[in-house]
Amino acid sequence: MSAALRTPPRLARDTLRVIPLGGLGDVGRNMAALEINGQLLLIDCGVLFPEEHHPGVDLILPGFDAIADRLDDVVGLVLTHGHEDHIGAVPYLLRQRRDIPLIGSRLTLALLREKLKEHRLRDTDYRVVEDGQRLVLGEFDCEFVAVNHSIPDALAVFLRTAAGTVLHTGDFKLDQLPLDGRLTDLRAFARLGEEGVDLFMVDSTNAEVPGFTTAERDIAPALERVFATSSQRLIVTSFASHVHRIQQVLDAAVRHGRKVVYVGRSMVRNMKVAADLGYLKVPADTLVELRDIENYRPDQVVIVSTGSQGEPLSALSRMANREHPVIDLVPGDTVLLASSLIPGNENAVYRVINGLVRLGANVVHKGNAMVHVSGHASAGELLYCYNIVRPRNVMPVHGEYRHLIANADLAVATGVPRERTLVAEDGAVVDLAQGRARVVGQVDTGYIFVDGSTVGDISETSLTDRRILGEEGFISVLAVVNTRSQRLITGPDIHARGFNEDETIFAPVATQITKALEEALADGVTDPHRLQQVIRRTIGRWVSSSYRRRPMIVPLVVTV
Amino acid sequence: MSAALRTPPRLARDTLRVIPLGGLGDVGRNMAALEINGQLLLIDCGVLFPEEHHPGVDLILPGFDAIADRLDDVVGLVLTHGHEDHIGAVPYLLRQRRDIPLIGSRLTLALLREKLKEHRLRDTDYRVVEDGQRLVLGEFDCEFVAVNHSIPDALAVFLRTAAGTVLHTGDFKLDQLPLDGRLTDLRAFARLGEEGVDLFMVDSTNAEVPGFTTAERDIAPALERVFATSSQRLIVTSFASHVHRIQQVLDAAVRHGRKVVYVGRSMVRNMKVAADLGYLKVPADTLVELRDIENYRPDQVVIVSTGSQGEPLSALSRMANREHPVIDLVPGDTVLLASSLIPGNENAVYRVINGLVRLGANVVHKGNAMVHVSGHASAGELLYCYNIVRPRNVMPVHGEYRHLIANADLAVATGVPRERTLVAEDGAVVDLAQGRARVVGQVDTGYIFVDGSTVGDISETSLTDRRILGEEGFISVLAVVNTRSQRLITGPDIHARGFNEDETIFAPVATQITKALEEALADGVTDPHRLQQVIRRTIGRWVSSSYRRRPMIVPLVVTV
Repeated sequence: MSAALRTPPRLARDTLRVIPLGGLGDVGRNMAALEINGQLLLIDCGVLFPEEHHPGVDLILPGFDAIADRLDDVVGLVLTHGHEDHIGAVPYLLRQRRDIPLIGSRLTLALLREKLKEHRLRDTDYRVVEDGQRLVLGEFDCEFVAVNHSIPDALAVFLRTAAGTVLHTGDFKLDQLPLDGRLTDLRAFARLGEEGVDLFMVDSTNAEVPGFTTAERDIAPALERVFATSSQRLIVTSFASHVHRIQQVLDAAVRHGRKVVYVGRSMVRNMKVAADLGYLKVPADTLVELRDIENYRPDQVVIVSTGSQGEPLSALSRMANREHPVIDLVPGDTVLLASSLIPGNENAVYRVINGLVRLGANVVHKGNAMVHVSGHASAGELLYCYNIVRPRNVMPVHGEYRHLIANADLAVATGVPRERTLVAEDGAVVDLAQGRARVVGQVDTGYIFVDGSTVGDISETSLTDRRILGEEGFISVLAVVNTRSQRLITGPDIHARGFNEDETIFAPVATQITKALEEALADGVTDPHRLQQVIRRTIGRWVSSSYRRRPMIVPLVVTV
Repeated sequence: MSAALRTPPRLARDTLRVIPLGGLGDVGRNMAALEINGQLLLIDCGVLFPEEHHPGVDLILPGFDAIADRLDDVVGLVLTHGHEDHIGAVPYLLRQRRDIPLIGSRLTLALLREKLKEHRLRDTDYRVVEDGQRLVLGEFDCEFVAVNHSIPDALAVFLRTAAGTVLHTGDFKLDQLPLDGRLTDLRAFARLGEEGVDLFMVDSTNAEVPGFTTAERDIAPALERVFATSSQRLIVTSFASHVHRIQQVLDAAVRHGRKVVYVGRSMVRNMKVAADLGYLKVPADTLVELRDIENYRPDQVVIVSTGSQGEPLSALSRMANREHPVIDLVPGDTVLLASSLIPGNENAVYRVINGLVRLGANVVHKGNAMVHVSGHASAGELLYCYNIVRPRNVMPVHGEYRHLIANADLAVATGVPRERTLVAEDGAVVDLAQGRARVVGQVDTGYIFVDGSTVGDISETSLTDRRILGEEGFISVLAVVNTRSQRLITGPDIHARGFNEDETIFAPVATQITKALEEALADGVTDPHRLQQVIRRTIGRWVSSSYRRRPMIVPLVVTV
């Protein structure tokens, strides 16, 4: 499916073009660009967190390059909700054009504002919208629809254009008893379905999961049990954006007469934002500052902390390693991981759990109690949506390829023709006209790596080098030769890192290298690069035969 | 618990000493050493597969060093079953003493013999035993007890010694309807319990899992459904040692008129061994060689392949990447992963699944069908064992710390006193005398790393270097100076790998380095190491301020 790049045709008037710049093929860096009659609308702009095959990379950005020369035509960036994989790349986009209108709900834009502050990005153009509201952005007549998710105030967006209509769900689920009473607005889905949805872009994250996602409030009993049975210190971790999860912890804390202490920068920041805006209801006299925790007995407080994914520098990891400046766990304390376990984080999370258990803590997690539910619609819920909306065309979004396929199969099961169910990956160019969506081309939406303060400098070549260096280390060989006298003046000096500390092992190969270099010099070879090849061949053969390993060889020849 | 090393006291006569050399704190490298009256008995000798924090390491061995000077006192090595984490390190132990008696069941020793062949280890001392049999090894009167697991012919071992008795379960579960009818012998457990079990060493792997492990035969319906609904090519992956799983695939194949092709070296090898010994019943005229596959329609064969954990070089990964020399998947083909998903392998496995789905294959795995059951006893089964054996002392084995703790809690729940339930980790020295087991000390059982053909050369320092190189790459700076004229002759030549391909970025810092070196030389600094420090400081400061990164700095100063 991820065909070779095919240059898309010129975009005809009154045709809508949709290009996913990220999130179709990965879980993360969600972003889509929609274009009609010379204007672009962007939906979401998130980051992807790197896996082990992107060593040293901090963040991965969407394929900005595909729209780099079109930023002046952007009429707005719609942010469906405040998660990192939907807003995390905004600062990097705004570096290229500061005044792109940013459209989203109150909470979403408040969280975004905090992020932009950290990037010292001010005087940006915020436009707060709420569900039910319409907002015309040039060629795009936008209507916003309430959806529920694992963060409050999430929005789906419905677009009316000269080419037809698009309904984009963002991330969503159909919790029928949401804590804040804010339902995914299926009545709106139905109304828009009646009006006609030409292209339905649908969250695929849980499309493989049969049945229905459990309601957030169904974790209350397990939460209650933990509070009821904890007579000492109690620590709860969760995503720092999961306002409803934290709300349940707050309510339980109040019921059990415990104060609440937020630990971890993002937790403190996000909960302040959520409380200030009224999304988090904090009973008077509930919160305590970490620095004041000494004034309370362990059983008088609950610590709400970051670190649910085993992040090495997080508060929880530091507690597990006895490295936390304030919080010291003792046998009988309880730690509750009220959070998901993102694939790839298992070992890190289990390391933290083992550390906590070793300190005598009682650890409750989704593996042994019902303390987490997903934020995404499962297969059963998606079927409801397809049957209510009855879209003309479907484009699964947000997920790995297996998720997109599973979601497409659900659409087809409800009667959407297979040929109108577009399983497209990042960079696919989809044109919508006369009620029919088709893939017409493919543009480059390669990964853009953020590493330290550099954006886009790290290439696949650098990453390949890092993988070799990380697996095998390197051996450097330095030789100074006098090309006139054709003699070796210094060296070979052989040093290794990540290979073997004992450098005496190189004595035999040093002799071989000296011999090989002197022969080459005698043959009149004076070009440093050719002499470096001689070194590379000699030591490469030696190390592979005597160690069956392939470290990076770094020959350095200086001619004087 | 992992206390600072405490030298254990001299071992008194008629006292039994038990030292776990691996597998208590990790899932893998299982090994225990038992000593009484100057003789040692070893139980299992397996490998641990490295995680991401051991970059480039191939295998991790048990803490051999703790018994290195005692090998002549070893009266035998009992191997409970044929899995890598129980027999994989035997070749490395035999390199230190070739003629250690190897005791195990027919299948276990047959699989071990294949492994030792690959390591060119012959004329070793095999002693085949079977369940119910007794074998006296010096001070150790051994009785072997049938247990079932995810490989046939597994054994528990009961030891009678002058100090008391030990029952070691090995890896086991209590499948009450095993495919081969070979039950875990609870009647023997009961009899030995009546006789008196002073120390019960119990598999902890699934101690956290509530309830009972599903019977192997309960995957038959899902397997049958896959065969019944597949009208094209069908590929099944599983662990190459899971004879019963493969047996079910074979039986289904015969029912549905498909021939069977084994793919993957270990699969071909193990299934031949299992069939030759009669553990795998292969109906006549069922097997086909891979090279003959072209003579059959895709729906006439089932391919039984390795690669269930997403191993990059496995047959399945190569099929997913269209790199397999023979097997080309087409839309509509089916791939069944009838296997577990070992923590840490998720991303690799999902990458393979995405690749297969992208080729149009229908992928069935434990996430969407009941096609795998565990090989280890869950909490409910362990409770049965404690109640039937009624041990005087318990030592949970085989698991991460969280597993050991969960298992200990089960023992305590059945009435074993907490102080007689020893949650010990690798290296704990446990003495048994007068029916009481106590931790009396701690010895070093650090990891021994196998990398290429080297064993034990790789140190933590090398791994730390690899982590830095793998995350950040390195920058090397070469300068040749004339210490007499106090002048810089060549350089600084700055090269980077894994940092940035564009070496022009180093121009500004090159000037800084030249300046710094000339100043140092002017101050009379001639020692190459001090000049290298000057380079390190200068470029280190530059890279961290301008890139916020910390690559390894490799300064090389040659003085002429």
